[in-house]
This record gives sequence, structure tokens and C-alpha cells, in this order.
Amino acid sequence: MEKSRRKFLQQAAFAGTGLVLADVSGLLASEKNNNNNEIKNGTMNKLIKSKGYAGTDKETPLQSWEFERRVIGDYDILIDIKFSGICHSDIHTIRDHWGPQKYPQVPGHEIAGLVAAVGKKVTKFKVGDKAGVGCMVNSCMECTSCKNGEEHHCETTGMVGTYGAPDPTSPSGITQGGYSNNIVVTEHFAIKIPQNIDLQYAAPLLCAGITTYSPMMKTGIKKGDKVGVIGIGGLGHLAVKIAAAKGADVYAFTTSADKLNDIKSFGAKEIIIVDEKQDQLKPLFGKLDYMISTVPYAYEMTNYISCVKPNGFFTQVGMPINGELTINNFSMIFNRVNFNASLIGGIPETQEVMDYCALNKIYPQIEIIKADQINEAWDKVVNKKARYRYVIDASTF
Amino acid sequence: MEKSRRKFLQQAAFAGTGLVLADVSGLLASEKNNNNNEIKNGTMNKLIKSKGYAGTDKETPLQSWEFERRVIGDYDILIDIKFSGICHSDIHTIRDHWGPQKYPQVPGHEIAGLVAAVGKKVTKFKVGDKAGVGCMVNSCMECTSCKNGEEHHCETTGMVGTYGAPDPTSPSGITQGGYSNNIVVTEHFAIKIPQNIDLQYAAPLLCAGITTYSPMMKTGIKKGDKVGVIGIGGLGHLAVKIAAAKGADVYAFTTSADKLNDIKSFGAKEIIIVDEKQDQLKPLFGKLDYMISTVPYAYEMTNYISCVKPNGFFTQVGMPINGELTINNFSMIFNRVNFNASLIGGIPETQEVMDYCALNKIYPQIEIIKADQINEAWDKVVNKKARYRYVIDASTF
Ligand SMILES: [Zn+2]
Ligand SMILES: [Zn+2]
Ligand SMILES: [Zn+2]
Ligand SMILES: [Zn+2]
Repeated sequence: MEKSRRKFLQQAAFAGTGLVLADVSGLLASEKNNNNNEIKNGTMNKLIKSKGYAGTDKETPLQSWEFERRVIGDYDILIDIKFSGICHSDIHTIRDHWGPQKYPQVPGHEIAGLVAAVGKKVTKFKVGDKAGVGCMVNSCMECTSCKNGEEHHCETTGMVGTYGAPDPTSPSGITQGGYSNNIVVTEHFAIKIPQNIDLQYAAPLLCAGITTYSPMMKTGIKKGDKVGVIGIGGLGHLAVKIAAAKGADVYAFTTSADKLNDIKSFGAKEIIIVDEKQDQLKPLFGKLDYMISTVPYAYEMTNYISCVKPNGFFTQVGMPINGELTINNFSMIFNRVNFNASLIGGIPETQEVMDYCALNKIYPQIEIIKADQINEAWDKVVNKKARYRYVIDASTF
Repeated sequence: MEKSRRKFLQQAAFAGTGLVLADVSGLLASEKNNNNNEIKNGTMNKLIKSKGYAGTDKETPLQSWEFERRVIGDYDILIDIKFSGICHSDIHTIRDHWGPQKYPQVPGHEIAGLVAAVGKKVTKFKVGDKAGVGCMVNSCMECTSCKNGEEHHCETTGMVGTYGAPDPTSPSGITQGGYSNNIVVTEHFAIKIPQNIDLQYAAPLLCAGITTYSPMMKTGIKKGDKVGVIGIGGLGHLAVKIAAAKGADVYAFTTSADKLNDIKSFGAKEIIIVDEKQDQLKPLFGKLDYMISTVPYAYEMTNYISCVKPNGFFTQVGMPINGELTINNFSMIFNRVNFNASLIGGIPETQEVMDYCALNKIYPQIEIIKADQINEAWDKVVNKKARYRYVIDASTF
């Protein structure tokens, strides 16, 4: 397809999502624009140069890659990324566990940085603000879900994921994520990061934080509730901290005995080290008010579910390969627990968890790594050696 | 073990369940006792002769079998069985699909007949009353669940199933079910069958009826709700009738196109014939208020679940081989449906569904068969050829 025709289709498709992109603003590179709040109109209609780490196929280690992002639209901001968290989902996606992918693809959806430029109609941010991007960068903004702040459940286009989603505005044809030094995003999908939380701590809140916060709030956990958290990794350790901050008695379930002291420090009341036989679970059958599982692979789930009281809820947020989980209905008829799953959260709720964690000093336990350590970090995540969230220093891309 | 010692242990174990069995009453055979309300005390301490059809191992066809039931205790009644329904669970149990069994074992837990004798402390029944027995014949009667009328969720001994459960009071060592000409049961676990419902219609209400009624009532389906029923067999066709009687708009899902006219006559508003690709389900995604699935084998479940509105409930009452069901968490994060399962119902609720169906003339669609047709009927149930419940004429044992 010739380039101009392709561009027309891209813009048409994009316009179809409900965003206004007419009179696209020009680009000023961020270093030349530090003192301006707004992109000057019309003059520098340039794509944004970006550098990051990309998967090139489903098995090769990630590699350094230079690519381009779209011109900054009227409602877009350019974020100079400072830190980017590593989520198990990045691995599942690039490794093709959840379906075939387009490559090269830059993963990463826990993005924190500073606003380097703003489109002329942007009102939410100004240059220099702290800003973050989580798991989505677009949606129709017109359907009931979008209007209700549940953009992740957009009923028309569906949410557009931060990486790997078809995106006619992206020169590479798909969205490219946060393992990179900058990102262009519609202001609506950027989260304001309060001054009193460091960017490296803010980053993991944008997936790990909201993913665990949202179902716990929806279920209405409250002071004194017994809340179980299964899998104490990137998501789970934040679930423990958030639930404890909400006043719950947290029961943390892990298969890694060496995490015990860490988990205590996160605020868990009880820590249950579970082995393959799962005998440790039986004394807790029917005892917990709520449980959330962050385990991102298929596992013997039903005994955990049975730890919830009859008529209580169990939420699976970890996403196994192909999404397949086995449930034993013999246990389910007796435990009478409601099983459900949950997908991140909407933009207003993501802002809420960011503000809540900043206010209450709930910080993820992180290890900062350089870009050339990403592949090693992925191996550690897969082998349950992460303690507890790797965060990439984006100055090393 | 010598007989007297064995009997002592049986009684000790039985006493341990909380039932009073001291001063066991004597037996008078039913034909000699038609005009008495009460067994004469102490004189005829005899086991009850019974005749039925039993499985002798996990694969051989059921065979005619003569066996004995316990002496009639103070709180027991002897029911002269007139009709006994065939449930898919009977097949799963005897065929070893749900775990190893003791044989010979008489299945059957949809039992309707006439009271032929009563223990001296029985107050709920008199000789000549219509009475039924469903899926359980005992529980501790002392725990919170039992006291709340949820005997099927007994927290101490667990409920004692109508067949195949260890039972020290039974000469064969296990409970023996309803494919037989009589049964001895504690009055509490017998259901009063109203005069205005025929015994052959009452029988299937005791499993198929209560199993579908209970979760629908718990969920609170109401007039105008869109209620989905998956699998229109013995359980499903009653679910359709009950939900329609409650004023719901019933969406019936079947894989058998030839059931269409029948299902209309049961009161369904929409009938969806589903093929292997399940494309018929997509237009209904997110549309129904509630769904109940009676499918008793593993099936592609997740697209059905997605037909329920976000935050709604989906109940699986059909029980597959080994209880194993696969759920796709990718669908679950988007559909936001709560999956649960349900086991029959307690004695008060079983009485409730019996009374409700009698009052509202909700009768199962049955085919009456003779004892020597049971094996053929089982094959038809497995091959989805039953229309819709086989009921055995117990005079043919
Ligand atoms: Zn993530
Ligand atoms: Zn939308
Ligand atoms: Zn049954
Ligand atoms: Zn009990």
C-alpha cells in the first residue's frame, strides 16, 4: 500500500474511534521545548524518535531497537520516560502465550516519566509534570463503559493495549510500550503522578497496583476482613500492602518459603507456605472473606477457592498461558464460592490507586535494572526469583 | 468381624451422628400394618426385606438384587416406593466417574411412595401418607448448617447420600437408594408430597427439581429477568418450567434441534440450538441476568458464561466426570461474570419446591418404564435420548 493512502486510512480509522485529530500539531523535540506548555501549531509535523527494547519474535531475547512514534496530536502528551516496570504479562505477550503477535514489539505497561511536550488542546498536563501510562492508551470514549470510566471494558473498539495492539496512528502499525525512552499518548489515558511519590515507585502501580486494587475495592473489603492473597510477586506483594492499608487481616499464600520475612514486612498477618499437596490449605477452608490470586500460570486452584467463606468471592487476576484454568466442580458445589476474574481498572480508578498509594506511602518493593539486564530479569520473573518488581531505568535505553 | 461386635460399632457410630436409636422399635411388614400409625414397640426387631436393581461393578448392567434395610427406628418411616426417577448422577456414580464405589449398590434418589410404617416417635407422617426421599438420608442435625435447614452442607459428618454412602445402620454397609420397592428413612429426611400431585410427577422434583430451584431462588430471579438454561434434559426442562412459572423470560440452550417444540411447550421464550462452533451464543453476550447449566459433562463453558451480564451469576449444577471443568480466564476478565456451583438444596427448600410445583401444576415430562428397562434407559440418558425423565414403576422390581 502506498504511503499516503495508508496514512489516510490510519487517520480515518483513528477518527472513527472518536478522537479529534484534525489540524495535527507539529513536533518540537522535548529538549527544545522544556519551557513551553504547548506544542506550536502546524510547523513541525514530525514523528517522534524513540529507542527501546523490543521482542523480534516469540523466543529471541529482547534487543535494542530504534523506532518512531506518532506526531503529537492536539490531545496528546509526550512523556519522557524515566522508569518502566516489568510485568509477567510482558513475557506472556512477547512469548506468544496469549496468541500470535506482531514484531518488533516493545513491551511495558508500567510507565512513569515527565511530560516533555503537550498538544495544543491538552488541559490535564503541562510540561514538567509527572505522568504515567498503564495498560491501555485508547478506547472509543463514547460508549457507556467509557463514559463510566471503565475504558478497559470499552464496548465498541475495545480498549487499545499499551503494546501490541493494532494502531493506525503508530508508524509500526501497533502500539509500542514502555521499555523505551518516551511515549506519545492521549492525555486522557495518562495518569497524574503526585509530587510526593518517586517515579520508580509510581510505575508498578499502573498495572500491578490497579489490577489488585480494583477487584478488592469492587468486592468492598473492609477493616477486619480476612483477605487472602495468592502468589506474592509483583502483583501479590502490592495486594498485601493495599489490603493491609485498608485494615484487612491479610493471609498471604506463597510457594516460596524464603519470602516469609519480606511478606511480614508487607503487612501480612498470616503467611502460609503451600507445597504441592496443599495440605496447608485445609485448616483455612471456609474461613476467609475474600481471596485474590495473582498466580500467572495454571495451578491447582480449587483448594484455594475453598478457603473463602460460602457466598464469598474469589478473584483470579493472574493470567495463565492461553487463559486456561481448571476448576473442580465437586469442590465448588460444597464451598459455594463465587469465582470471577478482573482486568486492570479504568482510568479514574487507576488515578485513585495512584493517589491512595502516594498518600499512604504504599510503595512497591523494587529492584532497578538497566536495559541490558532486561532479559536476565525476565528469566528471574519466570523462575519466581524476582523480589518483587523489576523497574528499568529508562536512561539506559 | 463377628456380627454382634459389628452391630455394636454400627450403633455406636450411628449414635455419634446425633440420632436417638435406643429402644429400637420392632418391624411389622407393611401389608400387616396398614391401619396403624405406629410400629408396636420391641416385639419384632427385624430387618426390612427389599428388592431392587443394583450395580455390581462399574461396568456390568444393573441386576435385580434382594437385600435388607435397617430395622425401623423410633424416628424412621418405611416408604413403600411407587416411583423412582433416573438421574444422570446415578450413572456417573455407579460407573465410577466420581470415584470408587462399593457394590452391590442400588442407585436412585428421586423416590416417591406411600408411608407403610412409622417409628413410635414419628410425628411428621402417618401410614398412608405420600412421602418422598431425595438425595440425602442423614446428617448431624446439630451443626449450624443443619439447624439452618442446609443439611446438604452439614459441617460435621457431611450429608449422607441416599446411595453409596458409608452407613453403619445398613446391613450392606452403605446406603441403598430408590431403584427398589421400599426404603427406611429418618422422618426428617422424608418430604411430604401433597395430595394434588401424582407420585410419578413428584419423584423427579426431589433431585432435578430442587437442584435447579435452589440456585435460582438464591440468585433471586424475578419476573421479567432473562434467565438462561443450558442443557434441556431431566434437570434443564424443570429449570425452564420453574423459571417460567416465576415470570422469567427463559432462554433455553440445547444441542438437540429436535427438542425445539418440546422446549416451547415448557414455557421458554427463546430457544437457541447451539452447535460445536457456538456462534449462536455471541449475539447474546452480556444479555442475560442469570444462567444455570445442567450439562453433566465437560463442555466449552466460557462462551455460555459470557452470555450473562457483567456482575451477574452463572451456576453450574451439572457435574462432569471427575468434576473437572475448564474455564477461560481471558473471557472471564472481560465478561465479569461470577461462576458458582450448587448442590441440591436443604430439606425445607426441597419441601418448598415440592409444594410450589404441586400448587402451580409444574410437572416433569416423564416416561414410565419397568425395572427391566433401566439399563436401556441409562444408555438413552447418556446418548441424550431421554425425553425428559425416566421414572421407574417400582411395582416391577
Ligand atoms: Zn501488567
Ligand atoms: Zn468505549
Ligand atoms: Zn440427581
Ligand atoms: Zn450437620
